[in-house]
Amino acid sequence: MSVLTLGTVAFDTIATPFGNSGKVVGGAASYIALAVSHFTDQQHVVSVIGEDFPQAFLDELRKRGAGLDGLTLVAGGASFHWSGSYHKDMVGRDTLATDLNVLIGWEPAVSAAGAEADFVMLGNLDPEVQLKVLDQIQTPKLVVLDTMNFWMDVALDNLKKVIGRVDVLTVNDEEARQLTGKHFLPQAAEAIHAMGPKTVVIKKGEHGALMFHEGEVFFAPAYPLDKVVDPTGAGDTFAGGFVGYLAARAAATGLTTWEDMKQAVTVGSVMASFTCEAFGTEGLASLSVDTLRVRHNAYLALTACGDVVWPQG
Amino acid sequence: MSVLTLGTVAFDTIATPFGNSGKVVGGAASYIALAVSHFTDQQHVVSVIGEDFPQAFLDELRKRGAGLDGLTLVAGGASFHWSGSYHKDMVGRDTLATDLNVLIGWEPAVSAAGAEADFVMLGNLDPEVQLKVLDQIQTPKLVVLDTMNFWMDVALDNLKKVIGRVDVLTVNDEEARQLTGKHFLPQAAEAIHAMGPKTVVIKKGEHGALMFHEGEVFFAPAYPLDKVVDPTGAGDTFAGGFVGYLAARAAATGLTTWEDMKQAVTVGSVMASFTCEAFGTEGLASLSVDTLRVRHNAYLALTACGDVVWPQG
Repeated sequence: MSVLTLGTVAFDTIATPFGNSGKVVGGAASYIALAVSHFTDQQHVVSVIGEDFPQAFLDELRKRGAGLDGLTLVAGGASFHWSGSYHKDMVGRDTLATDLNVLIGWEPAVSAAGAEADFVMLGNLDPEVQLKVLDQIQTPKLVVLDTMNFWMDVALDNLKKVIGRVDVLTVNDEEARQLTGKHFLPQAAEAIHAMGPKTVVIKKGEHGALMFHEGEVFFAPAYPLDKVVDPTGAGDTFAGGFVGYLAARAAATGLTTWEDMKQAVTVGSVMASFTCEAFGTEGLASLSVDTLRVRHNAYLALTACGDVVWPQG
Repeated sequence: MSVLTLGTVAFDTIATPFGNSGKVVGGAASYIALAVSHFTDQQHVVSVIGEDFPQAFLDELRKRGAGLDGLTLVAGGASFHWSGSYHKDMVGRDTLATDLNVLIGWEPAVSAAGAEADFVMLGNLDPEVQLKVLDQIQTPKLVVLDTMNFWMDVALDNLKKVIGRVDVLTVNDEEARQLTGKHFLPQAAEAIHAMGPKTVVIKKGEHGALMFHEGEVFFAPAYPLDKVVDPTGAGDTFAGGFVGYLAARAAATGLTTWEDMKQAVTVGSVMASFTCEAFGTEGLASLSVDTLRVRHNAYLALTACGDVVWPQG
């Protein structure tokens, strides 16, 4: 099953209380595409870059089967560049600079092959761009949307249009609260279901993720890392692992079941932990399936325990 | 196996953004004793009350097998009374009043039977009082300590003495960080191990709890409630369920294993969810084993998923 990945392919410059990244490759689609590539070599990346973007990263994506027909190269343009600084808690962050550069005026163009994608991962971007991409896709089996509070602040109407057209929404807990006005997450998920998405994944960073679907709830913890170097891209990696896993399962079975989705959330959670262990995309790019599998086993052991013996009632 | 429970038996007056409790029975030992009583009728409560404390609650404790030989009644005294107001997030809270009343000058007296307790639950209190109680107990099999940031601020030396004498420490994430100066929880747990406790349980409220023990890690989510009415007492309930379950297992097997401790954390987590659903101790007192078991099954289903199918590496 093929996956269409939309998002930024860009640069990040990140400061944390523990170190600085320098200017590194980042962007939602970079993380998503790498995560997806662990599960399928049928991927179409839709994004835009400037002439300053490193060829080596594009070669890496191509080597992993990510088609770049939908990647616009703006002659003389500079790639999108985000710069931010994390607080001491490694969760809160301040944006220091957002250089939109080639994002300005970009008209996303989906290739003929991309338009036939089975799975669509709309990474964090202007909802208007997400809508333009959705309009070019024929009959996807599953559309997943990741977004953030910024778009709730400045583009809520368009964001709601996108939300109304997707199967799965992934947002963090504060964003779910902002979007719905509901403090308690089961209530927020219900309000989001009413906007369209049958499945709602609420990401809580180091506290894991909750998935709500047709009255069912699933919880996936975060893998407890000894040290977080940089959480940037963790949410994108999570989303990419989630969609990539579902695409691989659907390729084998023709279906996307609730069991598949639960497994996909655990896979995405574990993949995200590798992204947190280093600046940039390197940890994710160099990840082997064996390494992933070993940590996933440790991850499952985190919540495994024998049967509780109850007192006589 | 018998359990000795130390803590306050007191009054709370609680305001949340969603309602007010009025003056209700609260206090760490009230919650712990009720939770423990679901698992054993061999319990000794060590606390102090004034003449204003309702006889009905004491009768309830006695009916549940909690011995009150160690409960000091101060003639003419008023019971401890805490009053607080929760923030919108239902996590942060401001203390409005702390009327120590009968706590001032109280010398805890453990009965002869209590001194032979197998399990000791030192609920949140002045570390000096916790030390005085520990000194009166002969050869406990397992001592669990719950404490909070307040004692780190005002009584750190004594607190460290207690920590050095217990098997299990339960604290919340911010307290673990404050106590150790380590931000990342696995590092904080390691620093706490070095202070004495072989087992460290880090409570994260709605985000669950992590337990660290001899290189092993276990994670227990919080049960996702549609609505939290009042989290007061949730940590005490968790600790009481944890110790009570371990006492019941040890009564059956003579042992406390890592598997027992993992199960105990899940039991404590589910019991705490009932405390969060109402003001005061009523939810916990009226809880039946069947109701607990049903929610515990739903709780286990939260993290249960089939085997992940990995791509060929």
